[in-house]
Amino acid sequence: MNTSVIKYILGKVMVISGGLMLLPCLVGLLYREPHGLYFLIVGLTSAVMGELLTIKGLKNKNFGIKEGSIATGLSWIVLSFIGCLPFYLSGEISSFIDALFETVSGFTTTGASILDDVECLSHCMLFWRSFTHWIGGMGILVFILAILPMSGGSSLNIMKAESPGPSVGKLVPKIKETASWLYKIYIGLTVAEMLLLLCGGMNLFEASTMTFGTAGTGGFGITNSSCGGYNMYCQWVITIFMILFGVNFNFYFFMVFRQFKKAISMEEVRRYLEIIVIAVILIVINIYKMCDGLFDAISKASFQVASIITTTGYSTTDFDLWPHFSKTILLWLMFIGACAGSTGGGTKVSRVMTWVRTTKKELSSYIHPRGVKKVRVDGKIVEHDVVRSINVYYAAFFGVFAVSVFLISMENYDFTTNFSAVAATINNIGPGFSLVGATCNFGFFNPFSKLVFIFDMLAGRLELFPMLMLLYPAVYKEMGKKVIKKI
Amino acid sequence: MNTSVIKYILGKVMVISGGLMLLPCLVGLLYREPHGLYFLIVGLTSAVMGELLTIKGLKNKNFGIKEGSIATGLSWIVLSFIGCLPFYLSGEISSFIDALFETVSGFTTTGASILDDVECLSHCMLFWRSFTHWIGGMGILVFILAILPMSGGSSLNIMKAESPGPSVGKLVPKIKETASWLYKIYIGLTVAEMLLLLCGGMNLFEASTMTFGTAGTGGFGITNSSCGGYNMYCQWVITIFMILFGVNFNFYFFMVFRQFKKAISMEEVRRYLEIIVIAVILIVINIYKMCDGLFDAISKASFQVASIITTTGYSTTDFDLWPHFSKTILLWLMFIGACAGSTGGGTKVSRVMTWVRTTKKELSSYIHPRGVKKVRVDGKIVEHDVVRSINVYYAAFFGVFAVSVFLISMENYDFTTNFSAVAATINNIGPGFSLVGATCNFGFFNPFSKLVFIFDMLAGRLELFPMLMLLYPAVYKEMGKKVIKKI
Repeated sequence: MNTSVIKYILGKVMVISGGLMLLPCLVGLLYREPHGLYFLIVGLTSAVMGELLTIKGLKNKNFGIKEGSIATGLSWIVLSFIGCLPFYLSGEISSFIDALFETVSGFTTTGASILDDVECLSHCMLFWRSFTHWIGGMGILVFILAILPMSGGSSLNIMKAESPGPSVGKLVPKIKETASWLYKIYIGLTVAEMLLLLCGGMNLFEASTMTFGTAGTGGFGITNSSCGGYNMYCQWVITIFMILFGVNFNFYFFMVFRQFKKAISMEEVRRYLEIIVIAVILIVINIYKMCDGLFDAISKASFQVASIITTTGYSTTDFDLWPHFSKTILLWLMFIGACAGSTGGGTKVSRVMTWVRTTKKELSSYIHPRGVKKVRVDGKIVEHDVVRSINVYYAAFFGVFAVSVFLISMENYDFTTNFSAVAATINNIGPGFSLVGATCNFGFFNPFSKLVFIFDMLAGRLELFPMLMLLYPAVYKEMGKKVIKKI
Repeated sequence: MNTSVIKYILGKVMVISGGLMLLPCLVGLLYREPHGLYFLIVGLTSAVMGELLTIKGLKNKNFGIKEGSIATGLSWIVLSFIGCLPFYLSGEISSFIDALFETVSGFTTTGASILDDVECLSHCMLFWRSFTHWIGGMGILVFILAILPMSGGSSLNIMKAESPGPSVGKLVPKIKETASWLYKIYIGLTVAEMLLLLCGGMNLFEASTMTFGTAGTGGFGITNSSCGGYNMYCQWVITIFMILFGVNFNFYFFMVFRQFKKAISMEEVRRYLEIIVIAVILIVINIYKMCDGLFDAISKASFQVASIITTTGYSTTDFDLWPHFSKTILLWLMFIGACAGSTGGGTKVSRVMTWVRTTKKELSSYIHPRGVKKVRVDGKIVEHDVVRSINVYYAAFFGVFAVSVFLISMENYDFTTNFSAVAATINNIGPGFSLVGATCNFGFFNPFSKLVFIFDMLAGRLELFPMLMLLYPAVYKEMGKKVIKKI
């Protein structure tokens, strides 16, 4: 295993995350908050240490899927440790594990919080908290790929490990160019939403933090009522942009390059929009009596469906009070998630599509035993290897899920709480039901359970395998061999 | 498609189920209950109609997996319709859909009931109710294979469709012989349990009905307190036999043929026993404080673990009052289920084993990309096709599961009720948690939900595909073609 490349990437992650901390430091300066200094201290230290790690440069640029996975898993852990330090050192979050939970929840765009009262945080901390969503949404390693000169072929493995969804292809021949286009689209959409929210009467601080939460499909708000306090115009802007950030970015890519036909024929995007429309209609029928007229029902249902399917987790109302039918729809939307190649979480629409089609194919192979039928998505044949890896993904997903619920249940809270808390963290959504509902938070769990949730959030964001690899003894055995060889 | 063979098999099912009704009729005679007459009437009618269907004999003996699946699905539906008639006609269960639910629950060895008070049923009805478990446990089509002269090769397809578990092989060269050996073992174990229960002070009626419930891993009791009223000796006999009926019958087969080495080396059986021991230990630690000493805790935990993992569903205590940790263990045991090739339900230990190993293999293929590793169970390589069909099985399983919970949730009961009710029916267990807990029943659901449960119970018992086939339009298209050709 090429451990030097892993070290190099980790160093770069430290430099960049240090650099990114200048922004909340600036916010602290603007609002004259002394806590802003912590970002300067942590940021500088991290950047200097990172530089020391990468000072030798990278000799052996070879790395495969193994190094890619491990580098990704470790990068996110390092990123989370650095990111949580300002919260902890400033004392605004007094427990280290809570600060870590909050930061992991931010970077993984989960949006689950341990804070009872977010409004007592200083502006620079609130800004950093929301900014972590924006960083985590597109992925820090994709960012590294976009700005650093690395050898093309092998860096695809990093992108594969970090990018959400089963099928990351190179959209343009060079991976570096792909990564930078992704970031251009991401920034473009972010600026558009921010401007629209400013038009709706928000100030720059509100508009930027709410936009970061939407863009990363994260869901951290800056008021205790999440989005309940904003006007109807702003709520609709957020609804629409949540849906837009849940669309496969290839769609925008095709639009930018004027390949409109290709864009419109993307089956996953169509199915994703269909699911949203159907879910909204069913929920509107179900909650109509509880709302002030049809428009109110549609607004609330659309906002919540968009928030849950994209795994953002914002709320305008306490949906835990909705009828069980609507809650069940929301719960299953949690599992479906947004499109592959978007910033949203969940298991992704295209995986569900492949899954349904594989089952159908099996049934039809009983009826026409001699007919060879292939699973197709977007009209293209899904390769056998993709089908297999999706099946394995689901196997791992339900395995991690079952073990997590089992571990959490030791605390003896009710089943709905445990089940939906794990669903909300592993799918990177944020709020669940019952004790972790829209108006509650994760603060009451014990540190052990919080560690389980931290693992689940990271595993969910990185699509399981990079985190599972870190639990796999053979990895350390091989790393150990390398170290021994050196000595 | 060869529809004549399907018709022939359905006819045979009607004859045999008619014949089996003589037994409860006899019980009615012994207890001088006039309701026993209904069994005579229904049984005779069914047998005569069945004879008429099969009177021409079977010309075209060819049938593949397609005919096997459809014949199995339809047979179980016909069986259930015939079986529920005495309940309904006698008026002991006043609603038809309730009578059908109770009968399907019996034949599929689920053991979920719609009755508030089972003690008000007459003896002959109680006997038939328990006897359906015994019939359904081994499967009526296996019985047909055991006694009827059918062509060897193709009848394996029926056995594959009906037998529980992923891998039914021919244990002895001839399928007929295999089927009859399975029945011999089944009857042997049944008689052994019955004798042991008689020694414990039960009368013949009690001993036989309780044994039927254990043998089929069904769970219908004859008192409202399930097994809570029996003495400790009888409870332990039932515990042990529940575990024994959950063992892969190949194990007994090897024992009978004195291949002890082969028997002991069966990995699935060892894992199954390990899971039981670990679950019992964890639950004992968790419920110790609620019990009268260690022995009481061990007895209750062992009984409940055996009852849930084999999907029997008997109870000696209201486990819904246990801490959530124990309840979560029981819930996951519901999904694991017993061994393949046993009378138990669930997804089966060997499937879970293959699942875990496939995931591990994927991880290790990241670390050693060039190493080719095969998934092994019992030291034997699991063929690629088996792995694939297990993955598809899980895909279909979670699909049916999610849709069912969605449909049930329209009634607006709490999530734990909906989730555990579907888990308890699709895994053929019986009781769930909350509103469908150990001391409750399914009577309060509306007819639509009951139909969903009926489908789930049948789908669970027949391992999904035979029932899903019946929902698949292409099947009817082909059947239609055949009929049109004839005209």
